[in-house]
Amino acid sequence: MTDQTPQVRLERAKEASRATASLTSDDKVRALEAVAVALLREAPRIIDANARDIERGREEGIGDSLIDRLRLDDKRVAALAAAVREIAALPDPVGRVVGGHRMPNGVALEQVRVPFGVVGAIYEARPNVTVDIAALALRSGNAVVLRGGSAARDSNTVLVEIMRDALSVAGVTPEAIQTVDDFGREGARALMHGRGLVDVLVPRGSASLIETVVTESTVPVIETGAGNVHIFLDETAPDDWACDIVVNAKVQRPSVCNAVETVLVHRQAAPRLIPLVASALMSEGVAIHGDDIVAGLVTTVIPATEEDWETEYLSLDVAMKVVDSLDDALEHIRRYSTGHTESIITTDARNAERFLAEVDSAVVMTNASTRFTDGGEFGFGAEVGISTQKLHARGPMGLSELTSTKWLARGAGQTRD
Amino acid sequence: MTDQTPQVRLERAKEASRATASLTSDDKVRALEAVAVALLREAPRIIDANARDIERGREEGIGDSLIDRLRLDDKRVAALAAAVREIAALPDPVGRVVGGHRMPNGVALEQVRVPFGVVGAIYEARPNVTVDIAALALRSGNAVVLRGGSAARDSNTVLVEIMRDALSVAGVTPEAIQTVDDFGREGARALMHGRGLVDVLVPRGSASLIETVVTESTVPVIETGAGNVHIFLDETAPDDWACDIVVNAKVQRPSVCNAVETVLVHRQAAPRLIPLVASALMSEGVAIHGDDIVAGLVTTVIPATEEDWETEYLSLDVAMKVVDSLDDALEHIRRYSTGHTESIITTDARNAERFLAEVDSAVVMTNASTRFTDGGEFGFGAEVGISTQKLHARGPMGLSELTSTKWLARGAGQTRD
Repeated sequence: MTDQTPQVRLERAKEASRATASLTSDDKVRALEAVAVALLREAPRIIDANARDIERGREEGIGDSLIDRLRLDDKRVAALAAAVREIAALPDPVGRVVGGHRMPNGVALEQVRVPFGVVGAIYEARPNVTVDIAALALRSGNAVVLRGGSAARDSNTVLVEIMRDALSVAGVTPEAIQTVDDFGREGARALMHGRGLVDVLVPRGSASLIETVVTESTVPVIETGAGNVHIFLDETAPDDWACDIVVNAKVQRPSVCNAVETVLVHRQAAPRLIPLVASALMSEGVAIHGDDIVAGLVTTVIPATEEDWETEYLSLDVAMKVVDSLDDALEHIRRYSTGHTESIITTDARNAERFLAEVDSAVVMTNASTRFTDGGEFGFGAEVGISTQKLHARGPMGLSELTSTKWLARGAGQTRD
Repeated sequence: MTDQTPQVRLERAKEASRATASLTSDDKVRALEAVAVALLREAPRIIDANARDIERGREEGIGDSLIDRLRLDDKRVAALAAAVREIAALPDPVGRVVGGHRMPNGVALEQVRVPFGVVGAIYEARPNVTVDIAALALRSGNAVVLRGGSAARDSNTVLVEIMRDALSVAGVTPEAIQTVDDFGREGARALMHGRGLVDVLVPRGSASLIETVVTESTVPVIETGAGNVHIFLDETAPDDWACDIVVNAKVQRPSVCNAVETVLVHRQAAPRLIPLVASALMSEGVAIHGDDIVAGLVTTVIPATEEDWETEYLSLDVAMKVVDSLDDALEHIRRYSTGHTESIITTDARNAERFLAEVDSAVVMTNASTRFTDGGEFGFGAEVGISTQKLHARGPMGLSELTSTKWLARGAGQTRD
């Protein structure tokens, strides 16, 4: 590209957003189908570019698990295209009437969903995020400006090229998808300070990336992600629910934000539940970081320190602590939770309702695995991220969360008294 | 008070917010009634404190209009109490179910409105804002931390004391209403950087105050206010609607954000409309800043410069410009609007719908006065402010906009496959 500043890319996105805002749902579906077809057709080119990222990653000594997250093969490219088609199949949020009434003087007020305009995203690692966020933004009528991780640089460049070309073919301005990857740190700074050009910025990645974006940005940000997730095994927690849910929440996919990190156990249930749950966890290879009481009930417990209560392990490790009461469990959660997801296992209806009411997290559960906090599980298709703030979006973010609203007022000459 | 840091006040508000979140609607109504009664009973003390602010203001040489905005008398204190009772009479947004469904595996998902927690407000001038924002925050289950303008320091101190005492009497923790006025600039800084303690911060006041809060804050902010508001008189605008609406929008209350600042006139309608509208405006004492064509049609026009298109006069001044087409009007609005309110006067349905669709502002009107952009007119009771950003709230903010949502998931042992 010949343009010289990230600012120009933001301006082009802003201009393109006026066109994408007025696309019909059919237009958007056609454009996304063109993107899906192009991704499949260009799979060899994508995989070739990805091989360069992987080679560079190996030279730079990044670990096997990161290499695996970075890798694209035929199957994964097919999954990218399938995700685009799933997003195309979701109902269009734009134009939905969400409120309104007739004023006493006859002015007709209507509140309707409209696209944000320009959605910015700063993210790391997996190249599928490039395609997911672009497709979600376009489906909801937005233009998007992407800033991906340098590890996936070559993959992201090719993916953006392919998507832009596909938009052109479908008669949609390619300027609706922009990247500022080629500007390095300056690209991220332009996004964070793009007042008047960037309507919302979503960071996705490590806690430190999110912290940087939240504290440095002067544009509106939706904070996502960090999940120091708790399960509380209440006095009445049944053996099977306790074991099944804790094991599922820890083991099914330990590296994600909705995996459980700390299990709190009611003192009265500790002798019954801790040996059972610990043994179920350990047979799946989970290391338990426990307090003294846990250590007295289970062998091979790693002594827990203050740091364990604060840690989002994202690995086959779990912290375990005995508490005296529901109140103590609530107090512990208040202190250490990141406000993502917490679940209580109990048959006591009073305690269940208190937990639901008093825990101040995006998702609060009774007797279910914390792994359910997920856009797909909630029925939103792909997700932009999981918001852990309270402004605008809270919990898994779908297409609606990429829209704003606008008031329309239709009068016939009315003035104010 | 004996506590030494603004941080302590924020922490107390956070703790109090757990109590206010679980108040019933009846509890909140009783507390607000106690506040209203106390304001009326303590009117002499309020007016006395206010007299000190006015005296200091006069010494510092602030203008008569600011002095008038600052002043509290018996009638205005009665209006404060009446506003609190109006807010108490609004439906409670907390607990309203706004979404949900049963997952295929039987988990019952429910999305409910919950209070934000701690609402921060940084504002200027009128002491009624102190009472309005505290009452709105409490009605929606939040604690509030206030930072008012130094001009109203003594009034605000007394108002906060009276409200806190009234809460105590009603059995609600007085810590739910905090001020950081006594910490000066440090108080504002603590609010803007209170990550984890302040859930949302609303600035209300001058453009420069809002800009400072938006760019300096690391907590989520809702940008309010600035209104460079446009009315477009289309080719088919009827004489009476054009005159009535423009005059109403400019003259009824020129100092507020929904007052019109620029009138755009279609070239074909200029010879018919401009003399009529200009004469109606001038007979109300409005000064017209016009382009060459306007100057050719009306005597005593002040020549408009680029600066006039950018200016939010907030006075009996209006800019007037002739445009060649609807497209040119849209382009002018895109360039100079602050995204608050714009209105088209037309009988052409096609142009009306294009204007509604393409103008990217919080409120877009056809054939109505821009003065209708107001929480009271929209049926929200008092308003926290008018949001000109797209995240979370757009347009007049009522009680719902002071709430977030939370997902509740009720299961019976479900785990994820």
